Amino acid sequence: MEHRFEPTRFYNAFGPYEPVLEVDDGDTIITTTLDARGKNKEGRKVAERGNPLTGPFYVRGAEAGDTLRVHIDKVLPNRAQGWSRTVIADHVVDAPFVREMPEDVLAHWEMNIERGTATLVDPETDLGRLTLSLAPMLGCLGVAPKRHQAISSATSAEHGGNMDYRALVAGTTVYFPVFEEGALLFTGDGHAIQGDGEIVGTGIEISMDVQLTVHVLKDMKAQWPRGENEDYIFAAGNARPLDQALQHATTEMLRWLESDYSLDHRAASTLLGQCVEYDVGNVFDPAYTVVCKIAKHLLPARN
Amino acid sequence: MEHRFEPTRFYNAFGPYEPVLEVDDGDTIITTTLDARGKNKEGRKVAERGNPLTGPFYVRGAEAGDTLRVHIDKVLPNRAQGWSRTVIADHVVDAPFVREMPEDVLAHWEMNIERGTATLVDPETDLGRLTLSLAPMLGCLGVAPKRHQAISSATSAEHGGNMDYRALVAGTTVYFPVFEEGALLFTGDGHAIQGDGEIVGTGIEISMDVQLTVHVLKDMKAQWPRGENEDYIFAAGNARPLDQALQHATTEMLRWLESDYSLDHRAASTLLGQCVEYDVGNVFDPAYTVVCKIAKHLLPARN
Amino acid sequence: MEHRFEPTRFYNAFGPYEPVLEVDDGDTIITTTLDARGKNKEGRKVAERGNPLTGPFYVRGAEAGDTLRVHIDKVLPNRAQGWSRTVIADHVVDAPFVREMPEDVLAHWEMNIERGTATLVDPETDLGRLTLSLAPMLGCLGVAPKRHQAISSATSAEHGGNMDYRALVAGTTVYFPVFEEGALLFTGDGHAIQGDGEIVGTGIEISMDVQLTVHVLKDMKAQWPRGENEDYIFAAGNARPLDQALQHATTEMLRWLESDYSLDHRAASTLLGQCVEYDVGNVFDPAYTVVCKIAKHLLPARN
Amino acid sequence: MEHRFEPTRFYNAFGPYEPVLEVDDGDTIITTTLDARGKNKEGRKVAERGNPLTGPFYVRGAEAGDTLRVHIDKVLPNRAQGWSRTVIADHVVDAPFVREMPEDVLAHWEMNIERGTATLVDPETDLGRLTLSLAPMLGCLGVAPKRHQAISSATSAEHGGNMDYRALVAGTTVYFPVFEEGALLFTGDGHAIQGDGEIVGTGIEISMDVQLTVHVLKDMKAQWPRGENEDYIFAAGNARPLDQALQHATTEMLRWLESDYSLDHRAASTLLGQCVEYDVGNVFDPAYTVVCKIAKHLLPARN
Repeated sequence: MEHRFEPTRFYNAFGPYEPVLEVDDGDTIITTTLDARGKNKEGRKVAERGNPLTGPFYVRGAEAGDTLRVHIDKVLPNRAQGWSRTVIADHVVDAPFVREMPEDVLAHWEMNIERGTATLVDPETDLGRLTLSLAPMLGCLGVAPKRHQAISSATSAEHGGNMDYRALVAGTTVYFPVFEEGALLFTGDGHAIQGDGEIVGTGIEISMDVQLTVHVLKDMKAQWPRGENEDYIFAAGNARPLDQALQHATTEMLRWLESDYSLDHRAASTLLGQCVEYDVGNVFDPAYTVVCKIAKHLLPARN
Repeated sequence: MEHRFEPTRFYNAFGPYEPVLEVDDGDTIITTTLDARGKNKEGRKVAERGNPLTGPFYVRGAEAGDTLRVHIDKVLPNRAQGWSRTVIADHVVDAPFVREMPEDVLAHWEMNIERGTATLVDPETDLGRLTLSLAPMLGCLGVAPKRHQAISSATSAEHGGNMDYRALVAGTTVYFPVFEEGALLFTGDGHAIQGDGEIVGTGIEISMDVQLTVHVLKDMKAQWPRGENEDYIFAAGNARPLDQALQHATTEMLRWLESDYSLDHRAASTLLGQCVEYDVGNVFDPAYTVVCKIAKHLLPARN
Repeated sequence: MEHRFEPTRFYNAFGPYEPVLEVDDGDTIITTTLDARGKNKEGRKVAERGNPLTGPFYVRGAEAGDTLRVHIDKVLPNRAQGWSRTVIADHVVDAPFVREMPEDVLAHWEMNIERGTATLVDPETDLGRLTLSLAPMLGCLGVAPKRHQAISSATSAEHGGNMDYRALVAGTTVYFPVFEEGALLFTGDGHAIQGDGEIVGTGIEISMDVQLTVHVLKDMKAQWPRGENEDYIFAAGNARPLDQALQHATTEMLRWLESDYSLDHRAASTLLGQCVEYDVGNVFDPAYTVVCKIAKHLLPARN
Repeated sequence: MEHRFEPTRFYNAFGPYEPVLEVDDGDTIITTTLDARGKNKEGRKVAERGNPLTGPFYVRGAEAGDTLRVHIDKVLPNRAQGWSRTVIADHVVDAPFVREMPEDVLAHWEMNIERGTATLVDPETDLGRLTLSLAPMLGCLGVAPKRHQAISSATSAEHGGNMDYRALVAGTTVYFPVFEEGALLFTGDGHAIQGDGEIVGTGIEISMDVQLTVHVLKDMKAQWPRGENEDYIFAAGNARPLDQALQHATTEMLRWLESDYSLDHRAASTLLGQCVEYDVGNVFDPAYTVVCKIAKHLLPARN
């Protein structure tokens, strides 16, 4: 079943809040998200800044210990104006180099949705009217956290959250561990495009039309967000420093390869050792995100 | 001019040692490297384990403050037998998960150089006779370090070293800051293939035929290793934790974009913010390696 | 005014929950805390494990942007039986050394409150019946977090929380930034004694009689927990890695020395450079705690 | 036997260099050290800046695998003028706070050796003529590193080096793992006083009169520097981030308690869990230093 849902109440945290909509296992949610500062498709501010979230959506049948499968059917900017920051974050460059960096100003970008491009309008730099191909993604996607916490949409943890991982685009499937009854799915913080690490603290921030399809998995036991697209399966870890995020992601991948692909830790290590790929999700937020991925064509059949 | 050089003396550190060969700016060195445990193309142990290095090569005209350009003309396994470890390193998984990991054993791989493949011979796992495409690379490449240090070939720093970055393949150009007269170039630790991070502590370790062409650049002021291939320019940072390696790499990229591409820090930040890519070189060695890269087609013309 | 409050409802997070008691600026709260697994002075389990908290206490007049001053009047074990873990946490030793460590078991300790000692009852080790002097402290102390979050009592942040800092004993004053109206003060997780870092994941865990006196400060602008005792003023940072916790603590101390002691950053740096002391609060919890402190006798008069 | 040795050749790295003096097991070396910028007791620059070292001293009988015991008999400033930096290092404060920090200038301090004080002469700050008690220590102390490396005297590792640990004062005994024949002992970088962490990048830098007594221990198997004074035994770890330095130090302490105090890992964990203390050696140098210590009165008799 398809649900069209226009949000009016926005949370700035992933938490055990009153659901805005109840859906069934297998349902599709067609909705919208605000940009990171709370502006909608008309550019009107309708929520507090700091990644206001659409949701939570209660998925019937989801219980703590289950896994929620979320297929991203669609992520598309629904207005023409996006913005970004223009200075790499102080904590992403060498500490003394902070003294060399300019003050931050906002950049404005003009979308051409039909052609699939974003063009830099200002400030004036030697980039001129730089035009980039759109690669729309969801900066925030996740469920209510463990231990009944309410965790800011500025950061991430086992429940997903503000992972700012550029592969969360239309066509990607993500799996989240369920901690609360109904899972309580949230999304927001869409980026028309974003580099690895979200190192200026933003992608091209914009409001989005979003469509998600959800399933409750009783037999998958994810401890961290997992996902897949046509070419890869992946697992994400969220923590600081990056080393720990990478440990979480790698460990989660080992668990997955053991349970679903019949690869014990030695077999999985041997394969990953020569073929693993890592992506840096974000190095801007309080928790950093590292993704461990392996090409599907290298894997045995899934159980 | 081409030099054919067959090494007989191997160092286990990058340091200000007596050169084994002097070459001119623009010369090509055709040589061989041992595997990480000191075995040559006949499988005979001729040097101490721990990444014994071929070199140092003294490049005439190179002085402290210059940059040494090294084009990797060729890296090709020169024997059929390679080996790898089979357990992800303890420090790459969650600390409690170490208790789940098996003891390490060596895996043996059979190369088919003509077909460009490596096949897992043993141990027996659910991978069967896994066959992978070769992607031969140099785990160790660098020059003598700063402050007249002698730094183990198990690790890396500003001078390069044991970066274990899988993009150091034939066709790639690498730039190193010069700290000693003659630069003193070393190489070794070839891998027939390796995953991101070298997370089992090895690639498929093997002896190699190697060809390198060197140039002295008086006007480039690299502080960390830089490089380029057909599609990207990149800068590497080597440190722990990964966060710091990423800071070094990003800062070096900012310096490069300013000096060679006329992009001040705001312009470069704006571009990198939406388009940067990070690679994880290694997370096994004492210093970790992160690479910051940007696609060439996004850049203005080089000065 | 003194309030005697016997808790019956316990939260496992610091969050914007319904207050259990309202008090005035300057009031004293006399209450009790459960041990980390929810057992009270009779050893009866009355709450869920994971540092169940007493509170929140609403302090009239406290508004976001203020600072809450909490004087710890009393912390005293109120039963004879305490317990601890017996194995240093996996993430506190070198990763390969995890393989050398035994399985964890609980140790039991017998308090002699009058003599002020704790004696190891079991397990049997070469320590025999080790007797230690009591140094009762509060593992959890803090207010509701920023951004209306609910943050697990297993960790810490700007609001304090589970800092496990051994200097939070009777006689110490702590200052917390206020994020919610009424501040919403919580406490719990008492330790009869604890080493630096809480490296086995526990102190000697025990229920406590606790007395706290609170004041609302309108003119102090703490961003992280601060404190003082007879000899020192201190600032705490909570984060991973320890490096970042230390940065937070040091920066907070610089702010404090500037605002309250008329020491600009150069003067403060010159003094701290030769006289600062750091304490490691905990290296067990998701966020680590570092404390930056300076002896009072070295400071100019407070404004 | 006592050796009076006046150095004339100074190294800026700990490495396998030609010894300047050979001594026997049990001998005492009476010598001097330069300040960090190479100035001697007359204030004359006689060596290159960057912690020029006195040594190496070859200790007869010391072989790889042994431990070198170094008792610090004396460390005393031998001139009246010391200097320090006046700004906390950029990497020791929060990254954005770097923008608040002033430019660094040198401070000058006047020693009164008889009274045991150092007085701030300039710059002018609100500290006035701050007078501190001397606590003279050795910033650099160590032996030649493993794998025949030459490691800069700006950093530290298993061999000791530039640990900048304020407890390396007269009366303290330090134990170093021996990697080269003769151990090759070096010292330098004396500080009249220094805060934890050496957070301005210096102590009060000064030339020193130093006296050391050395013994070769065949039965101690130190992997990291260890030490003891009247009240404590301690183990140091050197690495980044601090977390890893702390892991090394804690693991080394567990090894020591097992081999010399008959405390298996459970007994040692139980004791350390409630009684361990950590010191922060330095957080300025490329490798940070954490010290794990335990009070002697808590320990069983040494084997």
